[in-house]
Formats: sequence, C-alpha cells, structure tokens
Amino acid sequence: MNIAMLGSGFIARFYADTLHAQRRVDRIINVYSRNADNAKRYAEDYGLESYSTSMEEIIMDESVDVVIISLPNHLHEEAVMSCVKAGKAVLCTKPLGRTAKEAKRMLEAVEKAGLFAGYLEDLCYTPKFLKSVESVNNGSLGKILWTKSREAHPGPHSDWFWDKDQSGGGAIIDLGCHCVEIGRNFIGKNVRPVEVMCWADTQVHPIEAEDHAIGLVKYENGAIGQFEVSWTFRGGMDLRDEVMGTEGTIWLNSFLRTGFDLFTTGKGANYIAEKAESDSGWLFPVGDEAHELGYPHMFTDMFDAIDKGRAPRETFYDGYIVNAILDAAFLSAKSKNWKRIIIEDWRGSEGRTGEKEYNSYDADHFLIKKEILPNGDEKLILKHKDSGKMIQKTLKK
Amino acid sequence: MNIAMLGSGFIARFYADTLHAQRRVDRIINVYSRNADNAKRYAEDYGLESYSTSMEEIIMDESVDVVIISLPNHLHEEAVMSCVKAGKAVLCTKPLGRTAKEAKRMLEAVEKAGLFAGYLEDLCYTPKFLKSVESVNNGSLGKILWTKSREAHPGPHSDWFWDKDQSGGGAIIDLGCHCVEIGRNFIGKNVRPVEVMCWADTQVHPIEAEDHAIGLVKYENGAIGQFEVSWTFRGGMDLRDEVMGTEGTIWLNSFLRTGFDLFTTGKGANYIAEKAESDSGWLFPVGDEAHELGYPHMFTDMFDAIDKGRAPRETFYDGYIVNAILDAAFLSAKSKNWKRIIIEDWRGSEGRTGEKEYNSYDADHFLIKKEILPNGDEKLILKHKDSGKMIQKTLKK
Amino acid sequence: MNIAMLGSGFIARFYADTLHAQRRVDRIINVYSRNADNAKRYAEDYGLESYSTSMEEIIMDESVDVVIISLPNHLHEEAVMSCVKAGKAVLCTKPLGRTAKEAKRMLEAVEKAGLFAGYLEDLCYTPKFLKSVESVNNGSLGKILWTKSREAHPGPHSDWFWDKDQSGGGAIIDLGCHCVEIGRNFIGKNVRPVEVMCWADTQVHPIEAEDHAIGLVKYENGAIGQFEVSWTFRGGMDLRDEVMGTEGTIWLNSFLRTGFDLFTTGKGANYIAEKAESDSGWLFPVGDEAHELGYPHMFTDMFDAIDKGRAPRETFYDGYIVNAILDAAFLSAKSKNWKRIIIEDWRGSEGRTGEKEYNSYDADHFLIKKEILPNGDEKLILKHKDSGKMIQKTLKK
Amino acid sequence: MNIAMLGSGFIARFYADTLHAQRRVDRIINVYSRNADNAKRYAEDYGLESYSTSMEEIIMDESVDVVIISLPNHLHEEAVMSCVKAGKAVLCTKPLGRTAKEAKRMLEAVEKAGLFAGYLEDLCYTPKFLKSVESVNNGSLGKILWTKSREAHPGPHSDWFWDKDQSGGGAIIDLGCHCVEIGRNFIGKNVRPVEVMCWADTQVHPIEAEDHAIGLVKYENGAIGQFEVSWTFRGGMDLRDEVMGTEGTIWLNSFLRTGFDLFTTGKGANYIAEKAESDSGWLFPVGDEAHELGYPHMFTDMFDAIDKGRAPRETFYDGYIVNAILDAAFLSAKSKNWKRIIIEDWRGSEGRTGEKEYNSYDADHFLIKKEILPNGDEKLILKHKDSGKMIQKTLKK
Repeated sequence: MNIAMLGSGFIARFYADTLHAQRRVDRIINVYSRNADNAKRYAEDYGLESYSTSMEEIIMDESVDVVIISLPNHLHEEAVMSCVKAGKAVLCTKPLGRTAKEAKRMLEAVEKAGLFAGYLEDLCYTPKFLKSVESVNNGSLGKILWTKSREAHPGPHSDWFWDKDQSGGGAIIDLGCHCVEIGRNFIGKNVRPVEVMCWADTQVHPIEAEDHAIGLVKYENGAIGQFEVSWTFRGGMDLRDEVMGTEGTIWLNSFLRTGFDLFTTGKGANYIAEKAESDSGWLFPVGDEAHELGYPHMFTDMFDAIDKGRAPRETFYDGYIVNAILDAAFLSAKSKNWKRIIIEDWRGSEGRTGEKEYNSYDADHFLIKKEILPNGDEKLILKHKDSGKMIQKTLKK
Repeated sequence: MNIAMLGSGFIARFYADTLHAQRRVDRIINVYSRNADNAKRYAEDYGLESYSTSMEEIIMDESVDVVIISLPNHLHEEAVMSCVKAGKAVLCTKPLGRTAKEAKRMLEAVEKAGLFAGYLEDLCYTPKFLKSVESVNNGSLGKILWTKSREAHPGPHSDWFWDKDQSGGGAIIDLGCHCVEIGRNFIGKNVRPVEVMCWADTQVHPIEAEDHAIGLVKYENGAIGQFEVSWTFRGGMDLRDEVMGTEGTIWLNSFLRTGFDLFTTGKGANYIAEKAESDSGWLFPVGDEAHELGYPHMFTDMFDAIDKGRAPRETFYDGYIVNAILDAAFLSAKSKNWKRIIIEDWRGSEGRTGEKEYNSYDADHFLIKKEILPNGDEKLILKHKDSGKMIQKTLKK
Repeated sequence: MNIAMLGSGFIARFYADTLHAQRRVDRIINVYSRNADNAKRYAEDYGLESYSTSMEEIIMDESVDVVIISLPNHLHEEAVMSCVKAGKAVLCTKPLGRTAKEAKRMLEAVEKAGLFAGYLEDLCYTPKFLKSVESVNNGSLGKILWTKSREAHPGPHSDWFWDKDQSGGGAIIDLGCHCVEIGRNFIGKNVRPVEVMCWADTQVHPIEAEDHAIGLVKYENGAIGQFEVSWTFRGGMDLRDEVMGTEGTIWLNSFLRTGFDLFTTGKGANYIAEKAESDSGWLFPVGDEAHELGYPHMFTDMFDAIDKGRAPRETFYDGYIVNAILDAAFLSAKSKNWKRIIIEDWRGSEGRTGEKEYNSYDADHFLIKKEILPNGDEKLILKHKDSGKMIQKTLKK
Repeated sequence: MNIAMLGSGFIARFYADTLHAQRRVDRIINVYSRNADNAKRYAEDYGLESYSTSMEEIIMDESVDVVIISLPNHLHEEAVMSCVKAGKAVLCTKPLGRTAKEAKRMLEAVEKAGLFAGYLEDLCYTPKFLKSVESVNNGSLGKILWTKSREAHPGPHSDWFWDKDQSGGGAIIDLGCHCVEIGRNFIGKNVRPVEVMCWADTQVHPIEAEDHAIGLVKYENGAIGQFEVSWTFRGGMDLRDEVMGTEGTIWLNSFLRTGFDLFTTGKGANYIAEKAESDSGWLFPVGDEAHELGYPHMFTDMFDAIDKGRAPRETFYDGYIVNAILDAAFLSAKSKNWKRIIIEDWRGSEGRTGEKEYNSYDADHFLIKKEILPNGDEKLILKHKDSGKMIQKTLKK
C-alpha cells in the first residue's frame, strides 16, 4: 500500500524505519511537515517521491492509500478531518485526542464517512504483550483482578510535549494513554471502566503539566487497571506490566531487563537505546528497538486489516475510550476523589457487577486457603457459611 | 539476654529459629501460649526451661530480661500492659496495634514506665533494605520522589488473621504495616505523612476484610509512599520495593527473583519456601529465609540497643505512626477520597512543603532536559523564565 | 522473490512462518518432500502453488529464484548439487555439511558456478546478537578474550537427528555449529581458529552419538571460543551467550529469561514455547519465537544480499569453517587432547599471535591493578619491570 | 570460644567482621602479623587483648581454643605445624596448600595429632549453596551430570597473590579451589575425581601466573565438574554456579544479580561492593556481603562441630583433594591433554562407572524423548532395542 506520512519527527522516523525494513511490502511515498527543511530531509532519508508543507496536497495525492498521522497531539483532529475529506484510510498515533470530546469528533467523522481508522497504540502490539493477552484469553490466569502498566523515563524528546496546550497534559496524556489501554486489553475491552482515582504532581520540572502520576481505573466487574507514569525516572526507560488473576500472574519487562546485559568501561561508546542515560558501566540495550516497542506487529495488523476489510486490534473507538478515562484521571487529580468515567457511546457489555463464587469445602464451610506445611501436612482455613467463624484444620500427610 | 516468648505460632517459631541459630548469645527461656499443648511442644522444640498458659507467670519470671510478643494483633495491648506492670523490656511483632488509638496507649505506657520498647518490623531490617537506606541517606538517589513497597501472597497462615475483629483488618493491616514503614524509611522518618488515598476490595475470598488494596501516602515534602498488598497473588510470595529519586533508582526483589533458580520434574519434592505454590517446574527459593526476611539483623539491633541504652531503628513510636497512616487508609477506602492522617503526637519536622529548585540553563531559561541523540548531538529542552515558552535546541557534537 | 522449499518438517515450517508473515515480499511457491503427504499438507498450509516428491522438479521450476534447503543433514550435499545444476541461488540450513570435506565440496561447487549461497545460521541473526556484535566491533569491549555460547535442551524433534549416520553426530553437530559460529563472530571471522579441545559423552540417552559436549576453540590471537551443547538439559531451551573483553562484558539470554514471566495453576493450558517442559507453575515464554531465534533478520539479510549483489553475513565459507572446527572437536573428544583445526582454504588474516601491551605505571613499573577501597583510598598493585617483583601501594583519598 | 587470628589482611578482616557481628558468642582475642603496625591496627579495630609479630606467642596463648589461619598460601604449612605443636584446633583459609603434597603433610600432621582441622571454604557455605546441595541430596535433580562453577573478577587485592611462588599459581589456585569444591559437593564427595582437562593462559596482566583458566574435572561416574576462573573479568565480581541433573537444573547467582538493582548519577558515591568497578550508572550491590559469601554459616558449622565433636562440612581432607585436582589441572594446562588425578589417600567409594539405565517404551523399544506439540499431540522418539533404528511416533491428543 502507498502511505502518506504526516509529520517528520521522532515518531515518524520510528514508523518509517519499521515500514521500510525487513522487506515489507507497504511504502511511504510522501511526507508533510510544517517545516520544509524537515520534510525534505525526511523525504531524502527514506527515498520518498515527494514532500510538502501542505497537508492537503500530501493527503490528496491520488496514489496514496493510507495516511499516517505522526503529528503533535493538538494537530490530530485537523489531520483526521482532512483525511475524512479526502476519503482516505487513516492511522493516528497515540493519544487519539487531547480529550474525549476531541476523540469523539474524530471517531464520529471517520465512522460517518465509512473509513478505516486505526489507532497506533504500539505498546498493545509488543510481542510479549500479544502472547500475554493470548494466555489471558485462554484462561491461564483465571479471572483478572488487577493489572499494572508502568512507563517512566526522564522526559520526552520534543518541545511541544512539555507544553500543556499543545499536548493536552503531561505524563498522563503522553504515557498514561499506553498504560490505560494495556490494562483494558488484559481486563477485557468489553468490560466497562467506571471510575478513576488519580494522583498527579509536578515534582521536578519547571512546567505546568504533571511529570508524575499514579492512577487506578476501576472496571464494572471489580477489576483494577493501575497506571504509573513519570517523566522523572532515572536509569533509562522503564516499561513494565503486571497482571494478577485468580489462577496466575504475568510480569513483563520490555526494556531495561530483557536478557541483554552489557558492561563497558566506555571505550568506543555509542548510542545504546532510546532514553538510556549512560554509555558506560552496566547497560541494558534491547535487541531490536522497534520490535520491542511493537511497531512491526502493529503495522502488520493495520494493513492486514485494511486488506481483509476487518477491524484492527486497536481502533479509534479504543482511542476514544482511553481519552474518556484520562479525562476522568485529570479531574480526579484535581478533586482528590474518585471520578466517574463519562462514556456517552458505550458499546461493550453492561451489568457485570455480578456475584462472586466461593469454593465450598463441605456443606457447612467455605474453603479459604489450603497450604502445604514444611512437614508435608495440609493446612486448611475454613469459614462457616452461617456463623462466619474461621477455623483452621490440619490434615496429616 | 534471657527472653520470654509470648505466643507459639508461626512467627514465634521464626523468631526462635533465628535467635537460637548462628551461635547467637541471647536465649529464649520460657514460653506462654493460650494452648498448653502448643506451649509444651514449643518449649520442647527449642529446649526451654519452662512454659505456661499464664502470661503473667512467664513475664514475671525473675530471670527474664526481655519479653517478645508474638501473639495475634488483638492481644498485643494486654501483653504490653503486662510487661509494663512487670517493668520488663518488650519487643512487639507487627503491627503494633489494630488502630492508632490502641498503639498510642501502648506507646504512652512504655514511655511513662521508661521501658525499652522495640517494634519488630523485620522487613525494615532485610540486608538489601539496610544497604538501600544507607545509599539513600548518602544522597546517591538525590531527593526521594516516590517509593513503592509491595507484599502479595495467597493469604496468611492462621485462622485469626482472616477474622477482622481479632486482626483489625485484612491485607492492609497484615501487610500494609510493612509497606508503609518501608516507605517512611526511604522518604525520611522525620517527614510528616499528611494524607492517604486507598483502594481496597474483597476480590476473591469469602471474608469481611479486604484481600487486596493499593494506597498512596503523601508526605509533607510532596513525596509519595505507595503500598500494594494482597492475599490474592498467585505464584508464591511477592516482596518487592522500588524507590525513585531525582538522582537515582532502587529496585529490590526479596523473594521470587534473588539469583536462585531451580527446575525440577518433581522427584524428591520438599519444602521450598514460605508460601511457595508448587514443588515442580521452575521454582525460586531463597538461600536463608530468616535472613532474607530481616530477622537476624532485627534482633541484633534490638539487643544491641538494649545493651547500649540507645533506641532501636524501629520503635513503638514508629509502630504508632504506621497505625495512624493505616487508620486513614481504611477511612479513605470507604470514603473514596484522600483522608488526612491524624497524628496527635508528631515528633518530626514541620513545614517541609518548601520551594523546588530548578536548573537554569542561562539567565533567561530553565533547563528541562538534556539528551544525547543517536548521532552524538546534544538536544536541549529549555523553558523561558518569563514567557514560559518551551524551545528545543540541538548542539552539534 | 520466488522461493522453492526443500523439506517440510519443523524447520521448514519455522522458515515459512517467518517468510509469510509481517507483510514480507518474498514468497515460497513450491515444496519438495520425500513424503507426498507431508508435501501436500505443507503446500496447503502455506498456500503454495505446487508440491512434489521430485527435488529436481521443484528446483527446476522456472519461476523459482531461490532454493531453501531444510532437509536432514545427510541430504544437504545432494540438494546443493541440484541447485548448482539448475543454476539457482541457494540458502542452506545449518550445519552446512556433516564434515568439512562435504562442506568444502558444496562451497566449491557454488563458487565455481558463481551462485549466491547463503548459510542459514539463524542464531547469528538474533536482534540481541546483531547489536552485540555491533558493540564489539565499535570497541566497547576492547579486545575479546573469551566467548561462551550455550545451547541446551532435552533433545531434538525428529528421528533422524538421533541417528549419527544421517545427522553426522549428536549435540555437537546439531547445536555446536551455532555456538562455534557465534564465537567466531565475536572474536572476529578474520582470526584463524587453530585448535580445539573437546569433551563429549553420551550421558543419558540410548544412542551412539554424544548427548552432551563442552569444547574450547583456540584462535590464533589467544582468544577462546567456548561451546556448551546438550540434549540432556531439563527446564526448556537454554540459549545463552557470554563475551569477555579487556574493556567489557556481554551476557545474552535468548530464551528462558527475557523479561517475560508467567505463573499459572495450569487452567487453560496451551503451547508456551519450543521445548518448554511444563504448562503450569512459573513459565518463561518469549514474545515472538521466530524473531527471538533470528529468522526474520536472517532472511532479510539473505534476500537483500541477493538484491544488491553483495555477500550475506553468513556464507557457505562460514559453514565450511564451522565444519572444520567441529571435525577437530570430534577428533579431540576421542583422542583426549587438543586437535589442530585443518583449514585447507583459509581466507582470513595470518600471524596474529602478536605482542601484548602492558600499562606502565611509571618508568620502572607495570600497573597490574587499581582498586578503590571502602575508605576511598586507591590501592595499586605494581610490578617492577626488571626484577618482576610485585608491590602494593596505597594512595590516600 | 577464644580465637587466635594469624594474619591481618583483607580476609582476616572479613572473618573478624563476621565473627564479631550479630551477637555471636565466639571472640578473637589476639592476632599475629609479620608487620607490627598491621597487627596493632587490627587489634585496635577489633578490640583484641593482644597482638604480636611472633606467631608462636599468639598460638601458645593459654586462653586460645582455636587458631584461624588467614595468611598467604606459602605460610599455611608453617602455621598449621605450629598449631599441631601447640595442640590447638585449627581453621585454615583456602586453598589448604599450594600443592597436594603440601596439603597432605598438613592433613597427616593434624590427623596424627588428633586435632580438629577445618577448611575455610566459604563458598561451600553460602545460603543458596547450602539449600541447593540439600535439594540435590533430596533427589530433586536426579543424577547429577554436570556442574559449572564460575568465579571471575578483575584480580585479587594483595601483592602476594600475583606472585606465583608465594601463592602457588594464579587464578587456578586462587579461585579454582572454590569452584572445584563446589562441583565436588554437588556431584558427591564420595565420587572419585579421575582426570582433568584444563586450558590456562596469561591473557592480560604482566605476570607469570595464569589470569584466566577453564577446566573440566571428570568423575568416576561420568559426571563433569567444570570450573571457569579469571582475573580478567570486567564488571565486578561474577560468582555463578550451575547444575544439570537428569531431573532438574539449578542456577545460582551470588553477586551481580541478586535482586538488588541501583541506578545513580553518582551523587554521594560510596563503597558499593567487593570488586565493583564503578560508582555510577546501574550497580548491583548485595545485601550483606559476608552472608552472601558464606562466612556466617561457615563459622557456625566450624564451631558447632568443635562443640559437638563432629567433623565440619569442609575438612583438611577436602582441602587435600582440591589440591590434588588443581595439581592435575596445572599439568594438563601444560601438556594439553587430560591428566590423571593422583590421590594417594582416597577415602570415598570406588567402581562407580556402572551401567546406565534406559527407559523402555515397550518390550522392543527404548523411549528417547517425549514432547508435546503445539496442537497438543504427543510426539515420541523411540529406538529399537535390537536394530538400533530410530523412529518417531505421534499420539493424537
């Protein structure tokens, strides 16, 4: 497929490095940037046919099949609307909008126009993540109780990220969008997120936006999706997820501990990895950065989906839900209490507050816990169903 | 020193195994249990001179120098008061009380009587923790911004833990007391904890108390001490701490990943570790469980402190502060907003809300971030001090 | 490019899964297998145009650009000769031959015919390995002194591997070929491997061939390339490399510890990873198995090389050198002493035994070691250049 | 017990730090050093009653119960003989001798005199090691096939180590003694080590002795104990052990990856750990260095053994066997072939070459391997007992 690229910055380069590698079939053919020099350099670096400082010109190019939006957050809506006007399939980088309102307008526009619209949420496509979701869907972890997704590093690459008006916020909007959607995937996209509690602070940097935040997203079935985001972390880029289920646990480490340890006195120093903070001592590179961050699998899903006329794993609707959750997070951080998540257009299931099921030990007792003692005996903690009294019982080996 | 042991359960055995090992000089000489059989068996197992079902008899024994309280939570106050009456030094297992009120009565009683009173907070004595605190105190991490302490396992050993009236709560009181005090040690015991936000739920077990909780403790200087506690974790005992400072990071793993990996098909199966859930496949034992949990260093500090007439690292006052924080956590879990921590007797510093200091790049700009690019260039993000405008600047290598 | 596949077994499937994924441009179009059912099933599974039990028919197909050999070891030579006859580019799975003699005949045949001939040594293409070699080439590790490459698992998939006549050996030929070539890449392909010491034994299985072996390959510049191979390992597939240089260290773990930890009680059990031994308890999957094993980067290099008329990273010449080293390893395992490596056609550098360079401390002394003591003092170990006497010297902080 | 300390260097301080900590009951009372200043400073630092430059004076002191030898290797024999003369129990640091001959004279002297003689092999007392040996003895790993023990760092602390005459060798004698004895413990001390193959080289330092060596020790039952020792490692102190058995695997990491990760920009830098090479970036301290290196458990075993009149875990006989193995390693490194281990006084079992037992699948076939395929089918590799033919068989799920 022929791709138009909007934007020529850090992420546009990561996308191009991914798309033009490994003998993939889809090609970027032109690029838009507000800055002509940047557009030109990008076009040269990736061997594109043309570049322009007119977004419309790039999108309208007849040979373009798909448009990728790699622009700062405050330009997403305008770009999406241009794609709608041109009737082109569109893939938009994360976050979809700065607010749910903005995201909803984009969602409605592409749906009304009947266009393919993919949400480029790369961290929901890392190979470890995809296999984890598969295990969760297979039931290997039982019912999911809690997830934690953490992204922390010393701060983003470009000036506009640090300006609240352009970005829509700080670490919450920049990193929280990843973490929230990771949690949704594990807990189930069909389960309604109902409220959020969030702490946010500007602990280190001279900026308006938050540079550190922790949030808890509560789902209708009682599950919690925790996010931890920061621009104050020292030591590189910390990308970790955890999942707790009634039958199991998953721990993912996508960046600083992936089985690649390198010690160097610093001779012959070179670029180690995104946001690495040092080039001597013990370092923890990753093998293939784009792969580890999910880009190849993400674009494969997107273009396969277009080919086959199916929805991709991550859609504009997902982007909208994420924005709705983050809206509530920002409010909660100010009001200091749990905030209801407002989703005007909920398409998942309802009424999943349900009953818990307890294991019975016998007619009169629930089984609370079974444990093997050092001597091999089995120890049981039981609760009487009527009186509620707890007792313990030891069964000799 | 001669020690009287109150209680003969799981923790009393861990304590005895520690005290009577490694050619240590202090000895348990007698034991009290409500159950005569348990007392007798304990006395035999550890070669004690006597045992009794009368707490008073045990404490009053003239040769006793120090009393260790290893009783269920609801019996701590009574036991402490008996020690006060007998004028004996006392060491009490965690948590000190079920509430701050209870803890404060114990604190005041021992202080009024001028008795030595140590708080047996073992996880603040693990060797990794002690060395970490030393690094933090040396300034290796700069100003501490955030700590996370996590304890999660499939649930406690004895029936009384599961009964809210006897224990004072669920995972929060059982495990949160550890995590809160770990955070205090890293952030600084002198810094006032001001408010708490806590989520708690009973996700799995047929009990009244919470079996899973997450809390954020905010300190006066803006630092956050996060705790994550659960009785629903699958996979063993998860004991991890993290610390983020302006100059560094600490990650501690005290149980499931300590450099000891064992795979077995299950032949010759035996006891692997506390709360291990399996005896085949990949297992993660620890070398010396008591050591890894901090018991030897804890008792060394306690008895050395008595010998030298100094305070131990962990005192009844610390136990009281922990209870005050947990009180607020329980309230927050119910009210669903941040709750003020009520400390009637605050002995630390005040007024640490202070000013942040920002790095200036030049007279007009703050330096927000410096980053080395793959090509060796240095990229700067700057903020104009007056206009607040963000700019980026690249310095050629 | 259009690809003919020879073979339809485990490895042929791994290759097809890689080539036909991620929207890659090159396609397998037909397949040969000795067994018609297998050929048919393979063709169906991968949507191929045709299949056959005649190798010649498949290779001779006019639309075929490249032939991939995924056959048992004893069939490589015949297949290569057929490609030569047909004048087709050929990619051969590892090991190239069962012996250097066999490998050399293949090498000479393709070179004489002027054909592209790639050696499918996937483990020299894992992303971690590629980045490690880059770091080594940049000098981050200084001079390489020692490498260790380890591959161990419970044994191969197919019957022919276990039969020495068909495979040419046991774990040495099956796994040692990987490990030896990994070592060569780190130490430098230009440096001549001079002799080998190898222990091999059949410790567990009722077979003729070795199921466990350790070898040391000595290079002309004094570096050692160690290999550890086994079909007796319990716990999954152990794939680890280590490199020691004068300025640094690399540790790679490609399979059992890559930042992906999963605990499950076993509910909803499913396929976890190649050679995993369990489906409950703690498991260690990898994200994307083909990627982790190097297949995508390997085929990208091969086809890019064909496109650009350059040599691939791994050639038939490399396969020949590996066989020469393994020949010596088998001899050494029998003779129980170091065996000279016979390379009739050495194309690298010669005479690299060279002089070592020592650091001088002053005119009279070599510096042996510098160490910072706990109190901050600097301790030096020096050697007098003439007398050879060792002294130590402490410089106050 | 009252202890006389011979030597006042690095290891004598580690021993004293261990013995005088954690409220242990045994005390060092006096110290000998060849250098009066060192003796005096040591005595002051540890609060000893007296010090002397006369070894005899220190040993003969009437109140001394046990003598600890912490002297350079070439002084062990003289010191042991003085203890024998004085009739004192003696504990000698590793290695026992520089050669088996020297070790045997010490062994015979103490045995003839009927004295307690402990071999201070600390790394056979690390908590992880003790628990591992227990698991092996319980049969959790089945029959042990191979062990690997690795100790590597940038080189020892004191000048005499670097001088072959005083130390008896380089990395082999300094570090190999640990690794060899670790292997013996896992494989079984009762199993006779029969021959050694060793590579050794002086790769980096301007010294006579080897600074890097790899060896394989073959035992009568076919098991291999591998050792890897180096004074050329960069990155700190690498202490790792591995064990492979027919039913399981153990991986131990005792120093650089123990669940303690610290990143610091270098502010407030301080002593991190023995042989750490850096004080900024990612660092890997251990919690309690003495504990992690086995000292507390070692001395507990030694003094308990004296008290109870039993042998300690590590005796002079073990030290002698280790020296015998190292003697053969030195010879092998020169002769470049396997060397017989000469043990004149073998006290273990004999004739353990025995028969292997294979699993039968049915009357006609051995079972070579069983594997679960991705689709759940079971794949078997079988060998016909008479014809030796290999077949594979797939059982549908």
